[in-house]
Amino acid sequence: MNKAGFSQTHHEGLRIEVDALITHGLVVTMDDSSRILEDGAVAVNNGKIMAVGDTAALVSKYQGRKVLDAHRKLIMPGLINAHTHAPMNIFRGFADDLPLNEWLYDYIFPLETEFVNRDNVKLGTRLAIAEMLRSGTTTFNDMYYHIDEMAGIIDELGPRAILTDALVDLPAHNGKSLQEALQQVEEIIQTWKGHPRIQVGVAAHAPYTAKPKVYQAAKVLADKYGVLLHTHLSETRWEFDLILEKYGFTPVQHLENIGVLAPNLVIAHGIHLTREDMDLLARRDVGVAHNPQCNMKLANGTAPIPELLRLGVRIGIGTDGVASNNDLDLFDEIRSAALAQKLINSDPTVMDAKTVVEAITIGGARMLGLDNKIGSLEAGKQADIILVDLKQPHAWPNFNAYSLITYSLRGSDVDTVMVDGKILLDNRRLTTLNENDLYEEVHALSDRICSWQQQRTKSKPHPKA
Amino acid sequence: MNKAGFSQTHHEGLRIEVDALITHGLVVTMDDSSRILEDGAVAVNNGKIMAVGDTAALVSKYQGRKVLDAHRKLIMPGLINAHTHAPMNIFRGFADDLPLNEWLYDYIFPLETEFVNRDNVKLGTRLAIAEMLRSGTTTFNDMYYHIDEMAGIIDELGPRAILTDALVDLPAHNGKSLQEALQQVEEIIQTWKGHPRIQVGVAAHAPYTAKPKVYQAAKVLADKYGVLLHTHLSETRWEFDLILEKYGFTPVQHLENIGVLAPNLVIAHGIHLTREDMDLLARRDVGVAHNPQCNMKLANGTAPIPELLRLGVRIGIGTDGVASNNDLDLFDEIRSAALAQKLINSDPTVMDAKTVVEAITIGGARMLGLDNKIGSLEAGKQADIILVDLKQPHAWPNFNAYSLITYSLRGSDVDTVMVDGKILLDNRRLTTLNENDLYEEVHALSDRICSWQQQRTKSKPHPKA
Repeated sequence: MNKAGFSQTHHEGLRIEVDALITHGLVVTMDDSSRILEDGAVAVNNGKIMAVGDTAALVSKYQGRKVLDAHRKLIMPGLINAHTHAPMNIFRGFADDLPLNEWLYDYIFPLETEFVNRDNVKLGTRLAIAEMLRSGTTTFNDMYYHIDEMAGIIDELGPRAILTDALVDLPAHNGKSLQEALQQVEEIIQTWKGHPRIQVGVAAHAPYTAKPKVYQAAKVLADKYGVLLHTHLSETRWEFDLILEKYGFTPVQHLENIGVLAPNLVIAHGIHLTREDMDLLARRDVGVAHNPQCNMKLANGTAPIPELLRLGVRIGIGTDGVASNNDLDLFDEIRSAALAQKLINSDPTVMDAKTVVEAITIGGARMLGLDNKIGSLEAGKQADIILVDLKQPHAWPNFNAYSLITYSLRGSDVDTVMVDGKILLDNRRLTTLNENDLYEEVHALSDRICSWQQQRTKSKPHPKA
Repeated sequence: MNKAGFSQTHHEGLRIEVDALITHGLVVTMDDSSRILEDGAVAVNNGKIMAVGDTAALVSKYQGRKVLDAHRKLIMPGLINAHTHAPMNIFRGFADDLPLNEWLYDYIFPLETEFVNRDNVKLGTRLAIAEMLRSGTTTFNDMYYHIDEMAGIIDELGPRAILTDALVDLPAHNGKSLQEALQQVEEIIQTWKGHPRIQVGVAAHAPYTAKPKVYQAAKVLADKYGVLLHTHLSETRWEFDLILEKYGFTPVQHLENIGVLAPNLVIAHGIHLTREDMDLLARRDVGVAHNPQCNMKLANGTAPIPELLRLGVRIGIGTDGVASNNDLDLFDEIRSAALAQKLINSDPTVMDAKTVVEAITIGGARMLGLDNKIGSLEAGKQADIILVDLKQPHAWPNFNAYSLITYSLRGSDVDTVMVDGKILLDNRRLTTLNENDLYEEVHALSDRICSWQQQRTKSKPHPKA
């Protein structure tokens, strides 16, 4: 054995064992220095990222109990969906291209009244998690019903989420008084407190469905447990005008007046904003969840994201619910985010590729107050990591990783997903979920929805017809 | 043997043998009556569609030498890309989010001067065909250089295309006089005349690069051979103002004045149009190729497609070149087409799902003058058919096929593609192309492009940096 050989053996003996070593990938870290590694590696141990660096350096230092070869793959942080209603996917494509009020009052609300129950929320949550994992989303911020059931499914299937059940004026959807509803939310918060991946937050639905006392009670509860406060705000012109008429202030200023604007608040949409509204959001450090495809599809407009970013507002990007999107693919969503802003601002330089990639990684994490745990590939953070297969004709050539992610890649290119170091999608196979069973269940439910629709309106043609 | 058994055997004996029988799929025909079959089948023989109907009916009548089970798959016509520059994909992601003039003059034109040669056009065409087939595109209308080489590749690899080499003012890119350039185009037209899948058409680049005599000569040639005339028109505000100043007329009226507007003309873009322009396009039955993502990305605006459709203008949807898109996925493109129009028109009902699906199937075929051959699944048409795998979480549930195609499906969901009855993508495997070899070639070219860029501008940072 020559000296070099000895040295190598000696060195190997000193290598640190880690749970997993991902090697030879194009690493897009999203760290503060925007480091990109052409032949990079990530060491993962005990659910956390232990090191990020050049493959040669990491291979000499770490020995992976499992080695994932990421040659011709992109390695990046798991994506963060800033605002959704995951179980609404059971209504995907049921009512599209309709006027807003008809869509909401003639289709979505009756559908929800009839079909939102514990079983269907569980089914929708499983389907949504399958879709999210398959397209690289590891964390989502949700607002829906039966969140105790959702939490159970999320616990079992492995992603990370913030769950909120929207408080509204009486009579609430669950028939409970505000006091009862608050107590129920508090119990669910307590049940899941300390869970490594699940945070139960608090939501007030929107200023047109929740009075000031509902918002204020929600804020007290969110502050008590240090959790997120989630609402819809300034989504439609109708809402903006209504709140202005009712309270004499814009929706943002109304929430300021009742003491709700604060760093733990995330507002979904924020489309119709005055200059003062924007300044106020910046001053109070409120997070904004931008949902470009839903906003375009319902013709509500597009939020002034470039201005908000200039003011330092924390921005995330979400899909909103599938009933108004109609998918949970964040690759698709950031492409729309970039393109819509360029169109509306008549400026091809706004919302560049890096900006939108930030919004679904480290920026989204900051918006949700989770940037100490996730959002970038850095030692010490949780190992929420996705591998994207670049052996696709639409991924060649690759001159700029942010451009590739934003303008060329698709959710389906994601082939491996890890959350807290656990592999949930392994070379395109979901490890915690049987998809075929799921599809048959969804198919049976969609048959029931179609029958209900036929019964409901014999005279009214189904949109399918 | 009982009577029923005898009858069955007897019946089987009478079944007509066909090359392929596709069964048990959700068939979206795009025929005049918009027929959708829940458990449908398509019989294919000699490169043509022999029958479209319920699976039970077709199985009893036809026997397929090959049977493709399309259970849980969608069967639809191959998609039609109305306007692209296929080999520009070798510049994918090289220069994004830049001001229009900087993008064009500092990046794209120098890149083209340096790297557009016969070999790279062939390489780019192969890569583009791989990407198009993988995302369900079977026909594309192209304008680029070295189209004789492109035709050779297309002949070999199997898709359908209309190819044009843009005529411009002297000095042309190939150094030839107008007469020489026309002669060259005519020779290529003659070479490929009668090819079952390739039409060589004629193009004048744009009114700011081609004088009236170029347009007129192009039209004479196109008319002589009954082929398509292709141009860029009313793409930017700059062009609109320039032509107005130079000729005293809008770009559309300028082409009317010089006698070019006719049913065999396809204009790409058509964004900046007056009411009179729109009427003129309708009256002269000119086709319009809409390119929503490119138009948004370069912040050129969005064409008034709903108005043009109301006037009866034939509309197709294209991706434009990958240097300004950055992919060739028509699923993605129609989603943007629908969403952008809803946003711009503040109306969620415009550009509904069916309208945009039509634009990449039968509508696109009409625009290209190919609707007697392709664009719908109907007996007698060429067998350009795609199968889309619905066993994906984002494809469930499915209440409306057009919504599903427009708002939920992605190019990657396409698993089988047939052109003229020949299978070019077989369960996600390309049958006429080795992708891995292709990627290594593209990788080597992209290294040369990066080196050139580093040499060219030591002081100027590469967009990647």
